[in-house]
Order: sequence, then C-alpha cells, then structure tokens
Amino acid sequence: MSDHPATTPDAAAPFAYEGLERVIHEKARLGILSSLVAHGEWLAFSELKRLCALTDGNLNRHLQVLQEAGLVDVRKEVANKRSHTLCRLTIEGRRRFVEYLGVLERIVGDALHSRLRDAIPGRALGQGFSPA
Amino acid sequence: MSDHPATTPDAAAPFAYEGLERVIHEKARLGILSSLVAHGEWLAFSELKRLCALTDGNLNRHLQVLQEAGLVDVRKEVANKRSHTLCRLTIEGRRRFVEYLGVLERIVGDALHSRLRDAIPGRALGQGFSPA
Repeated sequence: MSDHPATTPDAAAPFAYEGLERVIHEKARLGILSSLVAHGEWLAFSELKRLCALTDGNLNRHLQVLQEAGLVDVRKEVANKRSHTLCRLTIEGRRRFVEYLGVLERIVGDALHSRLRDAIPGRALGQGFSPA
Repeated sequence: MSDHPATTPDAAAPFAYEGLERVIHEKARLGILSSLVAHGEWLAFSELKRLCALTDGNLNRHLQVLQEAGLVDVRKEVANKRSHTLCRLTIEGRRRFVEYLGVLERIVGDALHSRLRDAIPGRALGQGFSPA
C-alpha cells in the first residue's frame, strides 16, 4: 500500500477521484477539519462554530459524523460551573485528511496542466502553494 | 467585485469556505468538470463516462444538474445513423470552475501553513503545483 493511495489516479478512470472521501469532502466538514488542523490541539465548540459560520445544530451533526468516522475526538469539560465541548483531530483523522488534500492537489494540478491554465489569472492558481 | 470572490476568506469565519460552490463541489460533478477542462472542446458522453467511472444514469443526472446551472453545454448529434451525446464546459462554467479551484487552493494552503505541514511527506503536498 502506498502512503497516499488517494493521490494515485486510476489509469482507466483518471477523473473518478476515488480518494475524495465523502465524509471529509462535505463542505461544512471540510471547514471543520481545516479549522482543527490550523488550530492544533483541542478547539472549543464555540470557536469552531464561529470559524466555520455554523449553527449549533449543524456543527453538532457534522461533529457526530466525523467522530463516528474516527476522524475527530470530542470531549466535554466543566469550567466555572459551565460545560464546554472541545474537539480535536485524531491521528487517523490527520492521516486521512492529508490523503484527501493530496487529491485536492491533483484536481488543481489537472486543471493547471490543461488549456484552462491560459484562462487562469496569475493570482488565481499557484498562490496558495508559493514556497513563502 | 473581485475576479475571485470565492478565494477571499471571510475574516469572521475563515473556514466557512463560502466559495465552495455545491453544484461544482459534488464528487462526481467535480470529476466531470475536470474531464471537460482537461479535454477542451466537445467530449463524448461515452468517453466522459469512462474517464469518471460513472454509470449512464449517474452521468445523465449530473450533466442535467450542470446544464441547469449553466456550467455545461450538452448536444446530441447523429453519426453513422447512431445518436451521440457531446458535452463541453460553458464560458460561465469555466469562470466558476476557476473560482472554485481558487478555494481548493486556499484549503490546501491553509493546511500547508498549519502544523499539519510537519506531518505531510514531501510528495504529499506541493507536488501538483511545481512550476514544471
């Protein structure tokens, strides 16, 4: 097994993007996982809600999906007599998110190597990946 | 209006990824649009089906969504007494796909600038964006 099967295209169906794991690919969950990655360890539910512009209900629902998929740990703690929910990425979540990012890279790379490249303003693509 | 509103993060909710247009973000449709981008002009339904590993029914359903969203043109032509369906990206589809790609870039960029970076093997990220 490769470390990044998700990034290896299927020669017969190069645009099937099999590695685009649906649990991660859903828009809101992608934002939640990106937030957890950017903020490292435990992140408060209230902060995650703000970063992703989600309602309590939506964030709860998506966190449950991510927790059941083994991508996220959720913990409750009491401080100043108030209960706080905290979340973080699991080791497995980290590994699968990296694989997923490899597929996103391939999608942008496929476009970069197509005639669409001519249509892409300099700042539109490449920007996020500058060495700086 | 910016040329790439989709790539401009909302300071209040940087991980909401508002520009991640759902019509384009759906896994199968993302593969269809990438195929059309990579193959330029008109692409045969049968070829698109193979490239994306989709069934006739699924490809038809997704093409209808993309056509109704103004992203794709679908045309039927008869050759050798057989009817062929051909598809291509519209100018508008091209523009919106480029915007969408800008958001994918930002997602990978957000991860690259996080502590996840240390966990990412050299080949996992950056590869698709080499100048070569």
